[in-house]
Amino acid sequence: MQLTRQSEYAIRTMLELSMLPEGEFMQSRTIAARQELPEQFLNKTVQILARSGLVETRRGMQGGIRLTVKPGEITIADVVAAVEGKIALNPCLADGYHCANQPACRVHGILKRAQAAMLAELGKETFAELAGEDENRITS
Amino acid sequence: MQLTRQSEYAIRTMLELSMLPEGEFMQSRTIAARQELPEQFLNKTVQILARSGLVETRRGMQGGIRLTVKPGEITIADVVAAVEGKIALNPCLADGYHCANQPACRVHGILKRAQAAMLAELGKETFAELAGEDENRITS
Repeated sequence: MQLTRQSEYAIRTMLELSMLPEGEFMQSRTIAARQELPEQFLNKTVQILARSGLVETRRGMQGGIRLTVKPGEITIADVVAAVEGKIALNPCLADGYHCANQPACRVHGILKRAQAAMLAELGKETFAELAGEDENRITS
Repeated sequence: MQLTRQSEYAIRTMLELSMLPEGEFMQSRTIAARQELPEQFLNKTVQILARSGLVETRRGMQGGIRLTVKPGEITIADVVAAVEGKIALNPCLADGYHCANQPACRVHGILKRAQAAMLAELGKETFAELAGEDENRITS
């Protein structure tokens, strides 16, 4: 039971972009260097974030990646959901899953509460808050 | 971010065994039938549980699988840890992981709290409680 590496890279990417002045781009090689991530894998992560509408990319020297959402309106829970799809700690917690035993199943209830508790923590702080408290913050 | 199928099968196996009178064995084919699990995969799960010291197996008609722990002393968190190893939502939460940025990293802090919240829920009820409340309980 672990976040995918893709999710972790996505979180770190969103954090770096959240530290930028609004509307500014950052090159993926800069993100890769600052977060010590392999650039090729990072580019795949950026594609996923772009498809999810969280970032946009622009080619060229003045280009790079930038947020298309406000850092104050997005949390780690949102980013993980964008990368991994809607979080379901167990298949029985996914939308549309059918299990005849579900109404009586105590395990289902516990997994559901565990998932809710985890998501509540992941959704507690926005990237604006995360970026604001990071000591490596870039000031404009 | 999902429990492995192995973990789910282990939880269901432990639940079935927790419903038995103390010391009794259950055949793996019975567990497989009751929980609608593929028997071959279940046998691998049982091997893991046996290596972890949670169950023991005995061959023969009177044999099968039985608990070597008290259902009142074990939780879903313990079973997941037995199957998947100590839970770490992200590599940076694993024992012995080194990251220079960790003291200042807000993401690390959030992931740590999310993991703690999830584990607290998974460790809240013992298998004795789960088995006692299951409507399919076997009475001796």
